[in-house]
Amino acid sequence: MPYYIGDVIKEETRLIARTPEKFRETGIDVRIDSRVEEVDEKAGEVRLVDGTRIPYDVLVFGTGTTPLMPGIPGEEREGVFTLKKFTDALRIKAWLREVPCRKAIIVGAGFIGMEMCEAIRNLGIEVQVFHRGTLPVNRWDPEFSKTVLDELRKHQVDFVTDAEVKAVETGMKHRLRLVTNHGAAEADMILMAVGIRPDVALPKQMGLPLGKTGAIQVNFSQKTSREEVYAVGDCCESFHRVSGHWVNIPLGDIANKQGRVAGRNIGGGAMIFPGIVGAQSFKVFDLEVAATGLDEREAIEAGFHPASTLIWGNAIAGSMPRNTKVGLKLIADRATGKLLGAQAVGTAGAVSRINTLSAALWAGLNLDDVGWLDLAYAPPVGPAWDPIHIAAQTLKREI
Amino acid sequence: MPYYIGDVIKEETRLIARTPEKFRETGIDVRIDSRVEEVDEKAGEVRLVDGTRIPYDVLVFGTGTTPLMPGIPGEEREGVFTLKKFTDALRIKAWLREVPCRKAIIVGAGFIGMEMCEAIRNLGIEVQVFHRGTLPVNRWDPEFSKTVLDELRKHQVDFVTDAEVKAVETGMKHRLRLVTNHGAAEADMILMAVGIRPDVALPKQMGLPLGKTGAIQVNFSQKTSREEVYAVGDCCESFHRVSGHWVNIPLGDIANKQGRVAGRNIGGGAMIFPGIVGAQSFKVFDLEVAATGLDEREAIEAGFHPASTLIWGNAIAGSMPRNTKVGLKLIADRATGKLLGAQAVGTAGAVSRINTLSAALWAGLNLDDVGWLDLAYAPPVGPAWDPIHIAAQTLKREI
Repeated sequence: MPYYIGDVIKEETRLIARTPEKFRETGIDVRIDSRVEEVDEKAGEVRLVDGTRIPYDVLVFGTGTTPLMPGIPGEEREGVFTLKKFTDALRIKAWLREVPCRKAIIVGAGFIGMEMCEAIRNLGIEVQVFHRGTLPVNRWDPEFSKTVLDELRKHQVDFVTDAEVKAVETGMKHRLRLVTNHGAAEADMILMAVGIRPDVALPKQMGLPLGKTGAIQVNFSQKTSREEVYAVGDCCESFHRVSGHWVNIPLGDIANKQGRVAGRNIGGGAMIFPGIVGAQSFKVFDLEVAATGLDEREAIEAGFHPASTLIWGNAIAGSMPRNTKVGLKLIADRATGKLLGAQAVGTAGAVSRINTLSAALWAGLNLDDVGWLDLAYAPPVGPAWDPIHIAAQTLKREI
Repeated sequence: MPYYIGDVIKEETRLIARTPEKFRETGIDVRIDSRVEEVDEKAGEVRLVDGTRIPYDVLVFGTGTTPLMPGIPGEEREGVFTLKKFTDALRIKAWLREVPCRKAIIVGAGFIGMEMCEAIRNLGIEVQVFHRGTLPVNRWDPEFSKTVLDELRKHQVDFVTDAEVKAVETGMKHRLRLVTNHGAAEADMILMAVGIRPDVALPKQMGLPLGKTGAIQVNFSQKTSREEVYAVGDCCESFHRVSGHWVNIPLGDIANKQGRVAGRNIGGGAMIFPGIVGAQSFKVFDLEVAATGLDEREAIEAGFHPASTLIWGNAIAGSMPRNTKVGLKLIADRATGKLLGAQAVGTAGAVSRINTLSAALWAGLNLDDVGWLDLAYAPPVGPAWDPIHIAAQTLKREI
C-alpha cells in the first residue's frame, strides 16, 4: 500500500474528522505530524524525523506548496502568518479571537489575499492590503482588476499600491508594525500572501527530475520518472491543453483529480489525467472573478497571435429586475480564430460563463463555434444573446 | 429591402418603444397591425388584409407560432387567454387589474404554464393548474418534474393531475367556470397553455415545403426552397447537432440568431446558422430548470443507445454556508460514450451546468472528456468535484 506524504487530501477538515484511528479501521495507516526527512530508494523506505523507517512499494508525493516569505527582518514574529494548511487557518482564527484583533494587514493581492480580505473584513476587522503592483490580481485585464479594487474599497479595505515591505516591528497602538516604503502601518496581525512554490525538497534530494516550473515532472498517469514514484497536486506539473506546455497551477480541484488518477493506476486500474485548461476563480465580497485558458502573455509564449476583446453584457436579460452586468474578455488566435482564453467578473454569472468557455477550450473550439453556442436562454437566467456570443462575434469581426 | 412578416423581433418591447415612425427614420418601413393575407410570388408582392399590395425582392417569414386551444365549448369567452404575443401579455395584465382577479386557472404545465404560475402567484392571486399528465414539464426526468411540482406546492399552487377540460362556462363566485373530468372549478381568468404550432398558413398557401415537424424547411443560410424566400424563428426548423435531424424548437434565442443569419445573407454577407443542441431553461419561483441535448426517447429515435444517470450534488462546495443541492441527469450513448443530453434542477447552478454541457454537446465530447473538464473551482462558486464530473464518471462506469 502506498504512503501518502503531505496533504493529498485537500479537504483537511475530513482528514481531521477521520482520525488516524478511523483510517486504520479501513486498513489505511495515516500518520499526522510525521515529517518524512529522507527517502531511501535503495531500501524502499522513508525515514521520519524521529528515525522511524517505513517501507513502501509505491511512493506518492503530495507535498503541495510552501508559502513564500518576503524575507524581511521580523517576519518570524508572533502574529505574522501565512495561509497554506488547515492548521494555519486554525491558528489565524485563534489569534483573531484571542488578541483581540482590531486591524489586519495583508501583504499581497493574489487569490489568498483577496479571499482573506473578505474573510477578515466580515469579522468587522479593519483590513489594509499592501501590494507591490498598482492593481490586485494581475492575471486579469487591468479593467477587471480595477473592478476588484473598487469592490475592495466599497467594503472599506484600504489598498496600498506600489508597496515594498521592509520590516516587521513591535507596534504601539497595535501588536505589530509593518515598515514599508510608504512609512509604517500598525496591525494586530499580518498575513503574508506573497506567493507559493512547489514543495519539492524530498524529490530534489532523490534527484527526481523537476520541470521548468520547479514542480515535479509527471506523465498522464501521474507517474514520475521512477517506476514506483507518483506525484499529485500542487507539487507537480499538469498538461495545459491550450498551450501544450506542462504547467504548475496549484488548485484544489486539480490536486483532487490527480489524486484519483494516481490511486487508480497504483491500484492496478487504468486512468489518465487528461490535463487542464487553466480554469480558476475566486470570490471577493459580492464579486465573482474567474478566468480560463491563456492570457495574452502566455498565448504569445505558446506561439499564438492573440487578439482580444472586452465587453460588458447582461448577466440575465436586460429587461429583468436584478439584472447585473458581467464583464467578459475573450482572447483568440488571430491566425486561426481558435479560442485561447477568457476572463470574467461580475456579481453573478462570471463563473458560469468561464465554465462554459472552459468546455469550449477543452474541445478546441474557435470563435465561429463560440459565437453561436446554443445556451439555455430564459430572461431570468440569461439574455438571448449571451455576453459569450456578443464577445465572440465581436472578436471574430475584429480578427 | 425585405419585409419582415410577423414577429421576427422577439423582444417586442423594443418594437413598441421604436415606433414605426422611429423605424422609418432609419429607412425601415415597419407596419404594425398589418396582416398579410396572400403572397403573390409571380408578381413578387404581398397583399395585406386591406388590399394594399407591397412589392418585395426578398421575403422573410418570421410568423412564429400559433397557440393551440383545447377545442372546448366556451373557450372563446372573455377572460380566457392564450399567451404568445406582447399584446397578449398587455391584455392579461389589464384584465388582472380591472376585474379584479382573485383566482386564475392555468391549463397546461409546460414552460408557459410554469412561468405564468410564478407571474400570477406573485401578484397574490390564487393559482390552480389543470394538467392532463401526472407531473409538470414532461421533458424532464420524473424525479425533476416532481421537484418542480414540490416548488409549485410550496408556493400554494394547486396542481390538478390527469385533467381533461370539457367546457368554459359562466361562474358564480368567480367570472368563469372550467368544467373538467374532476368536476368544475371557478376562476376570474383562464390561461390556455396547452401548446403551440408553427404558424405556416402563408407558406402552405405558397406551397413552400414544410418539414416533418410542420415547420418551414430552411438551409443553413435560413433560405427556404425558393431563392428569394427566407424563414427564421419559431415558424421554421433548425438543425439539431446531436440528433442530426431538423427540429422545431420554438425559443427566442434561436429566433434571434436565425434573424441575424438571414439578414446578413440577404444583405450580401455570408453567414450560417450552425444549428442547436436543444439548450432550454425556465425559472419557476426559486427553482432553475434546464435541459440540453436529447432525452432518452429522442436518443433512441436518432439511433443511439442511451444510458443515463441522475445525481444530486452540491451547487457550491459542501462546506460553504448557503450551499444548495443541484440535480443533474446525464444521458450518453452506450456504444460510444458520446454525451447525448443533460437535465438539471436547483435553486442555483442548474443553468450554469447545462450551459457548460451544451458547449460539450456542441463539440461532440464524450464522457471521458466531460468527467475531467477543467472547471473554475473555488468553494463559494463550485465544489472541487463538480456534479458534472461526478455524473459523467458515474455514467462512464455504468456503461
